[in-house]
Amino acid sequence: MPATTLDIFLKGGLTIEQPSDGYRAGTDAVLLAAAAAAVAVPTMLEVGCGVGVALLSVAALRADPHLALTGLEKDPGAYELARTNLTRNPVPGRLNVVHGDVLNPDPALIGQFDLVFSNPPFFDDDQAIRDPAVSRQAAYILGAPLADWIKAMLALARPKGRFLMIHRADRLPDMLAALAGRAGDIGVCPIRPRAGDPAKRVLVSAKKGSRAPLRLLAGMDMHPPMGEGRFSAAYQAICDGGVLAV
Amino acid sequence: MPATTLDIFLKGGLTIEQPSDGYRAGTDAVLLAAAAAAVAVPTMLEVGCGVGVALLSVAALRADPHLALTGLEKDPGAYELARTNLTRNPVPGRLNVVHGDVLNPDPALIGQFDLVFSNPPFFDDDQAIRDPAVSRQAAYILGAPLADWIKAMLALARPKGRFLMIHRADRLPDMLAALAGRAGDIGVCPIRPRAGDPAKRVLVSAKKGSRAPLRLLAGMDMHPPMGEGRFSAAYQAICDGGVLAV
Repeated sequence: MPATTLDIFLKGGLTIEQPSDGYRAGTDAVLLAAAAAAVAVPTMLEVGCGVGVALLSVAALRADPHLALTGLEKDPGAYELARTNLTRNPVPGRLNVVHGDVLNPDPALIGQFDLVFSNPPFFDDDQAIRDPAVSRQAAYILGAPLADWIKAMLALARPKGRFLMIHRADRLPDMLAALAGRAGDIGVCPIRPRAGDPAKRVLVSAKKGSRAPLRLLAGMDMHPPMGEGRFSAAYQAICDGGVLAV
Repeated sequence: MPATTLDIFLKGGLTIEQPSDGYRAGTDAVLLAAAAAAVAVPTMLEVGCGVGVALLSVAALRADPHLALTGLEKDPGAYELARTNLTRNPVPGRLNVVHGDVLNPDPALIGQFDLVFSNPPFFDDDQAIRDPAVSRQAAYILGAPLADWIKAMLALARPKGRFLMIHRADRLPDMLAALAGRAGDIGVCPIRPRAGDPAKRVLVSAKKGSRAPLRLLAGMDMHPPMGEGRFSAAYQAICDGGVLAV
């Protein structure tokens, strides 16, 4: 069994067991959950839910006992930890995790969800490429081109259902190309380290089958100017339980 | 002859004759010129230069007697006014305007320019669609799909030459799709009316033949919060002769 740690999310609202090494949930999961929790729908699916941080965070933020939240995870170790974390954290809503691959999902899941969201595994220049550990690589390498992952996510959404993804800002062209002709009402929310910086991440939302125009939102800075504390007021509000409409 | 007015740009540095009705140069031309003037290259072409506001502004901002600046304009009336405006405004550099269509240009222009930039005619929801005047429509309606316009602009750039366009923010997916596989090192600069607003325009730059990743820049707000003056400090700096790197 790989070593794990217990970590606190949402100001102690969640206790998450995750591997000591390899991919560890962080700000991307927090931002994704805040954006998913801003969507008021009865059924949601997280694709590649890992150990369940975003899934549990959405449930805690929505606080809706009728919300049906499903997580899909391919990696057996992460899937088992997600099951453990769901048991460990009694949040409102009907939660379950499914062991499976977004690119070859249980046909019963197709077209079922009002919202399908994901923080897909990817190489991040800051973290992964210099670390050859297999456990780490497995979480960072997409098993397929991003376009296939996005098309598979859209197939899992019901007609007019919503899509939501956090990813590297420089992959925006690939995301928009994969959504083109399949989804509209696209919202792009740039996430910048500090005011004036280029975006490092983007949250991208879309509506399956829509032809409404794209909205390029003002976005958010994660940190205040140097020397003025750890987090910006906007990101601190999300850590404190706020949501983020995209 | 249609009625014209004489208008001042760049704090009196330029006097521009333009039609009283129909398309009139404004903030888009100012932003485009500031972004073009940030590119330090010897040869530039403006596609769809209209009466020459951006062309003359770039020359005034660069203040480089060796800069070769060409404007291409299809509309005979705008072309004639651009010629008049070039004569009226003695700016540094070697300027000329050419009567022609970007989609069917003089072959001698192909692959010649270090920078090709444009504020292509388009419908703007705020201005044009409710105005049926033919003179106005002619300037706002693209004679071709945006993708064809962009591909034609790239053909006019030399290998590794740069591309720059200002356009509606909601057309960003179309711009990125047209650039895909043809240009890289894409810079996207969102232009927002005020802080926190969605972007209304984007400045998009790219390098022909490059495969470098996209940069989603922090962008700019045009106006300060309500009641705090007319322009933001960032846009006022541009009106005062600043440039804008994209």
